[in-house]
Amino acid sequence: MIGKPPASFAEIIAIGSELLLGGRLDSNSLFLTEALAREGVEVRYKSVVGDAVRDIARAIGTAARRARWIVVTGGLGPTSDDCTREAVSFVTKRPLQVRAEALRQMTERLATWNRVPNDAQLRQALIPRGALVLANPVGSAPGFAVRHGQALIAALPGVPAEAQQMFETSVVPLIRAKLKAGKEARPAVRIIRRLFHTFGLPESEVQAKIAHLLPPGSPIRLGIYASPLGVSVSLTVIHEGRGRSPASSSSIDRGRSVGEEAVERTLGAMRDQLAPFVYADEADTMESVVGRLLSQQSLTLAVAESCTGGLIGHRLTQVPGSSDYFEGGVICYSNRMKQDWLAVPEPLLRQHGAVSAEVAAAMARGIRARSGASLGLSITGIAGPGGATPGKPVGLVYIGLATPDGQAQAKEFRFHGTRDMIKLRSSQAALDRVRRWLLERRPT
Amino acid sequence: MIGKPPASFAEIIAIGSELLLGGRLDSNSLFLTEALAREGVEVRYKSVVGDAVRDIARAIGTAARRARWIVVTGGLGPTSDDCTREAVSFVTKRPLQVRAEALRQMTERLATWNRVPNDAQLRQALIPRGALVLANPVGSAPGFAVRHGQALIAALPGVPAEAQQMFETSVVPLIRAKLKAGKEARPAVRIIRRLFHTFGLPESEVQAKIAHLLPPGSPIRLGIYASPLGVSVSLTVIHEGRGRSPASSSSIDRGRSVGEEAVERTLGAMRDQLAPFVYADEADTMESVVGRLLSQQSLTLAVAESCTGGLIGHRLTQVPGSSDYFEGGVICYSNRMKQDWLAVPEPLLRQHGAVSAEVAAAMARGIRARSGASLGLSITGIAGPGGATPGKPVGLVYIGLATPDGQAQAKEFRFHGTRDMIKLRSSQAALDRVRRWLLERRPT
Repeated sequence: MIGKPPASFAEIIAIGSELLLGGRLDSNSLFLTEALAREGVEVRYKSVVGDAVRDIARAIGTAARRARWIVVTGGLGPTSDDCTREAVSFVTKRPLQVRAEALRQMTERLATWNRVPNDAQLRQALIPRGALVLANPVGSAPGFAVRHGQALIAALPGVPAEAQQMFETSVVPLIRAKLKAGKEARPAVRIIRRLFHTFGLPESEVQAKIAHLLPPGSPIRLGIYASPLGVSVSLTVIHEGRGRSPASSSSIDRGRSVGEEAVERTLGAMRDQLAPFVYADEADTMESVVGRLLSQQSLTLAVAESCTGGLIGHRLTQVPGSSDYFEGGVICYSNRMKQDWLAVPEPLLRQHGAVSAEVAAAMARGIRARSGASLGLSITGIAGPGGATPGKPVGLVYIGLATPDGQAQAKEFRFHGTRDMIKLRSSQAALDRVRRWLLERRPT
Repeated sequence: MIGKPPASFAEIIAIGSELLLGGRLDSNSLFLTEALAREGVEVRYKSVVGDAVRDIARAIGTAARRARWIVVTGGLGPTSDDCTREAVSFVTKRPLQVRAEALRQMTERLATWNRVPNDAQLRQALIPRGALVLANPVGSAPGFAVRHGQALIAALPGVPAEAQQMFETSVVPLIRAKLKAGKEARPAVRIIRRLFHTFGLPESEVQAKIAHLLPPGSPIRLGIYASPLGVSVSLTVIHEGRGRSPASSSSIDRGRSVGEEAVERTLGAMRDQLAPFVYADEADTMESVVGRLLSQQSLTLAVAESCTGGLIGHRLTQVPGSSDYFEGGVICYSNRMKQDWLAVPEPLLRQHGAVSAEVAAAMARGIRARSGASLGLSITGIAGPGGATPGKPVGLVYIGLATPDGQAQAKEFRFHGTRDMIKLRSSQAALDRVRRWLLERRPT
């Protein structure tokens, strides 16, 4: 049986043909899902619709029949393919009007950039009749919020910085006011979600090690997701408020009283089963974890990258403040650079080849000595699709680590996949190697 | 008016709570949209649904009322959160049965990996009654295809390599057979889509330069999309076959006879207006374009990266065969590395600071001389959020280029956004600088 969904569910509709083609990540969804969860509202559907009035109107119509809150992102810009305004106008039967408030906000915003609205931008002041204009403190396109049947539609720009700020400053207060005013004096849904990340075990082994920790019928829902960065595990519990009957048709059991403590206990047991493969929790990343461990131990790192081509350095420097522990490194794509910059002996290259444990160890020693860093991390391998030789297939990778005791050791890995997957997995394995070394060294 | 959509539209449903959270790119959509377009089928909706039987069933039910073809990806794996089988069984009212064919294929596949199916994997042989089993030549989970009302549902695994191969080998023949057998002897829809990419102009200037080239009412639809990598422009025409009346309610005009030539002509005029900002077409990338130009001119490149931390090297080495023209480089995050590795004079660093045109030029000269490459590309800047000083705000970036004539020149840029956006924009500006130099040098 498919029951009527509780009124407090939300639906996110992302507008844009470029999103429909899938070539771009819709980065608003993660933020919106988390921000809505904080208000006790669960996102149950997300749709992506191209830039066509008819299709956007259909998607909003469908959403209004099943969700209480509809957040539409995108399609509010100045160009001719931006038609969210028209679609909302159509579906709510509210004609578009130039709204003085929207015009003033936009004009003021553009004035701070020493610009005046052009014809295209003036379209942005068109707002469905009766809708609340939502100020855009970052960009020029105002948003709006409007009631449609039982649903509240909030239309926000697609630019993440704008959507996020407008959601926090304008939409959250609206949701809170409605939840407070209506029968839903308390949030109707409370969501507990915990997430952690492992590297080094296949998905099925992760499942085998932890599935027994969740008895059949437990209201805690287990999610296991594989990616080139490893396998992530999530635990989710959704509580519905005020004695609603559990929606038995859902594969998510609801309404059973499982508190945060029980989730934390299960999470802890799963982490124990999987340690030392667990490297991070929630939105934390391998590069942040490695950075914190280096900072705590007052050590510095330098890298010598062959097959990853700079990816390890790029990832480490995504973390603000990484200059405190990251010295830099060498992208030694050619053999000449391995010899000239890292003092890898030419006979070693000739005898074992550039992709070998011996050369990886020499690279790690070389970058550590030349950079003056505490640790030297090296990587050499065959990312493919070309470059394989007899006995050295695509995906063969050696990772070397030179440590303060003067030692340098290399480990062999065999990865599968496309060139970018092999590069990504290699960078993750290299950073994980540093993480494990730092953890073993640290007195626990 | 919202008309009934033509029967040949398709809908893609991606299953997975991890996709709903938005933290991951659904990379199947681009492939499926393009592959369906080749068969004359337009994807008009894409939805993402979490791992819950009820929600997946609802999404499929909604899709079946508006689309002829429904491609579901994901939720066919062995773990307990994989429930696409159950959802399709529910919505089509076809009980799940262990199918000998599916079991045999899976057992054979696992045998090639020296494994036997475990209990969890055996669930993968459950298939709705009457469905066609689709062989998985890559992984262990079989797919299936089943009719529901007027729609054909194809369920494929979420792993891109598996989904893509199964779609090509099993689903495409099904679609062709049905299009041939039914009234749709010819594809009902023909889609012409062209795309090109610019760097260096804001979105509104791109629009201002080209919008007049498309007269009002033209059946060619213009899309303009901004990202940290620049502004992309798309032209789309959708033809419906066999004299269907144009769906006037859509913002995409249909049915007008505009051929590929007219699209190419408009595309050419727009490219002319925007040259030299246009750097690539379709799925081509800046790093590929730079690589081809270097190859054609038999030149090599080395990089000295400060604020981008290895991103330029990473991007260049995403291109197979890049070792032919990319020597490697230095990630010189610290001042010491700028001095020791690139011979940037210490007084220069003291007088102008590491983020200056003078140091950028010295870095470019240094990396060119030390690496032996034809061109030396350097970048130094403040990616933020920390590191700003009076007169040197976050986003200030200098890009230097040392050329075979011994000259090195630096240009100043000011970027906005978060740390990763500034890194990405900086890397794009640096590669674009090389591209423009190579183009100006080349006798045209």
